[in-house]
Amino acid sequence: MEKQKVTAFAPATVANVSCGFDILGFAIEDLGDKVSVSLSETPGVRVVKIEGDKGKLPYETEKNTCSVAVKAMVDDLGYTGGLEIELYKGLPLGSGMGSSAASAVAALMATNALLGNPYEKKDLLPFGIESERIACGAGHADNISPSLLGGFVLIREYTPLDVIPLHVPRGLYCTLVHPHLELNTSDSRSVLRRNVSLQDATTQSGNIAGLVAGLFQEDMALISRSLNDVIAEPSRSILIPGYDEVKEGIIPAGALGCGISGSGPTMFILSPTEEIAWEVSRISQQVFDKIQLPIDLYVSAINTRGAYIIEEEI
Amino acid sequence: MEKQKVTAFAPATVANVSCGFDILGFAIEDLGDKVSVSLSETPGVRVVKIEGDKGKLPYETEKNTCSVAVKAMVDDLGYTGGLEIELYKGLPLGSGMGSSAASAVAALMATNALLGNPYEKKDLLPFGIESERIACGAGHADNISPSLLGGFVLIREYTPLDVIPLHVPRGLYCTLVHPHLELNTSDSRSVLRRNVSLQDATTQSGNIAGLVAGLFQEDMALISRSLNDVIAEPSRSILIPGYDEVKEGIIPAGALGCGISGSGPTMFILSPTEEIAWEVSRISQQVFDKIQLPIDLYVSAINTRGAYIIEEEI
Repeated sequence: MEKQKVTAFAPATVANVSCGFDILGFAIEDLGDKVSVSLSETPGVRVVKIEGDKGKLPYETEKNTCSVAVKAMVDDLGYTGGLEIELYKGLPLGSGMGSSAASAVAALMATNALLGNPYEKKDLLPFGIESERIACGAGHADNISPSLLGGFVLIREYTPLDVIPLHVPRGLYCTLVHPHLELNTSDSRSVLRRNVSLQDATTQSGNIAGLVAGLFQEDMALISRSLNDVIAEPSRSILIPGYDEVKEGIIPAGALGCGISGSGPTMFILSPTEEIAWEVSRISQQVFDKIQLPIDLYVSAINTRGAYIIEEEI
Repeated sequence: MEKQKVTAFAPATVANVSCGFDILGFAIEDLGDKVSVSLSETPGVRVVKIEGDKGKLPYETEKNTCSVAVKAMVDDLGYTGGLEIELYKGLPLGSGMGSSAASAVAALMATNALLGNPYEKKDLLPFGIESERIACGAGHADNISPSLLGGFVLIREYTPLDVIPLHVPRGLYCTLVHPHLELNTSDSRSVLRRNVSLQDATTQSGNIAGLVAGLFQEDMALISRSLNDVIAEPSRSILIPGYDEVKEGIIPAGALGCGISGSGPTMFILSPTEEIAWEVSRISQQVFDKIQLPIDLYVSAINTRGAYIIEEEI
């Protein structure tokens, strides 16, 4: 029997992982978006339902990241039938947790399954990147790739796209601290210097090399020493009140390090155990209580399977 | 019985490994320096014999890299006895193959064994770095570390020193092409830009991350894609006639990539098999024959054990 409707889940992600600015992302367990895609007798790709976005997301096919991604896919495939998309947001918008990417990836996964899996999972990437061009003004892959594939993913190069899944050490946990601030992605980008010193470039290279080695060797101490971004964090963290205080508080508590998730305002904190990940969430809460800035907190393992199908209706 | 004389070997090394500019080095099998250190009744550290240097190396304790390294070690140890050093150069000077580092490392290994191994191998690093301050004007670790430890070694940070041995894929071979040119290390450094674009810094980070992942995953294709230095090579390769022609010729022959060894003029070429390493040595010979520049060629596996003791006399 032909499938009529497929629902998929795609996880939240952390991009710009510290010294992996613009090239490294990872996926979060549980937290994410759900998308259902149904066959329709009316040709074309349509968004028919959006929940959990407080009315902020567009329904227009050419503006919603789900439909942009699905449209890119069906155009590539030459599929001309009708598809209806329902989006259930589990992720806050504009948080720096890969909200637009999770929606697009879930839509792609669901559509691919609905149409009989014409694509390998990895081959869905370019359609997701196309949708990021709409959401961010640039075709980034550092949220799309980990949301689709799971784990830590290196985006070594964009043209041609070279996406490399890395090893995920056992026990690694993430705490996400989402302050209720609005940070515009293009503002976050405009505070970056356009040139960096050779010394800073070399330091950043040493740290990302150390981080990758630490992931493969499951060396938590090396991961911790390497989680140091000398390029983006110094200027971007100024935009996030409480950032420095949290950073100072979590290391003595046993966290490996922290950084700005995507272009913020969410902070991510990596810990070697679940227990420490909860402890640093309490420390973060205290810091933000003091400055009276409301936050959401998430404690999660690293998602190693990426996006997946939840339900298929025939 | 107490040892009277110990002889050690330390291998040649490639530093500034392409996108690993200033942070990554590896060691070469066979090619290297030998140093004998003997107990003497006259206190102090002395160089008593140098062979294979065509008379170019200094005998003064404070100028020869062997004696500078050994002096730093015995000062740290509080050893006040007499030590006599004999240096047998197997490496050409000023070639970019870590000649000064190999001498210092061999001297440190021999002295450590002679004095009953008061230090772990890794703890000899700071004394070697001290000797590089004399040879290069800066305390680099990217030749010293692989010469001592073998394999690919990441120098993530200098202060405090953080040296990380990486995995060496089976089958990896190196071809060294040493044109008979004199390149001054400080000239090579002066052609470097002091600032780089954020884009180039990010590209370099992506490539070193890809290279480290490729080494751990034994993924030769990924190593090849990642061997691309956008920071130092573009300006430094201009100083080496034939460089671009060799680079163009070796990739179609199956080499993974190439770069400038240290600050040149030696080129290193990495290949996935010994057969290809020999083939690219022939291609390199043809290029330099055409421009009538004499070269030395070495084809070698990656040395994974670093420096070692050859002989102990009691």
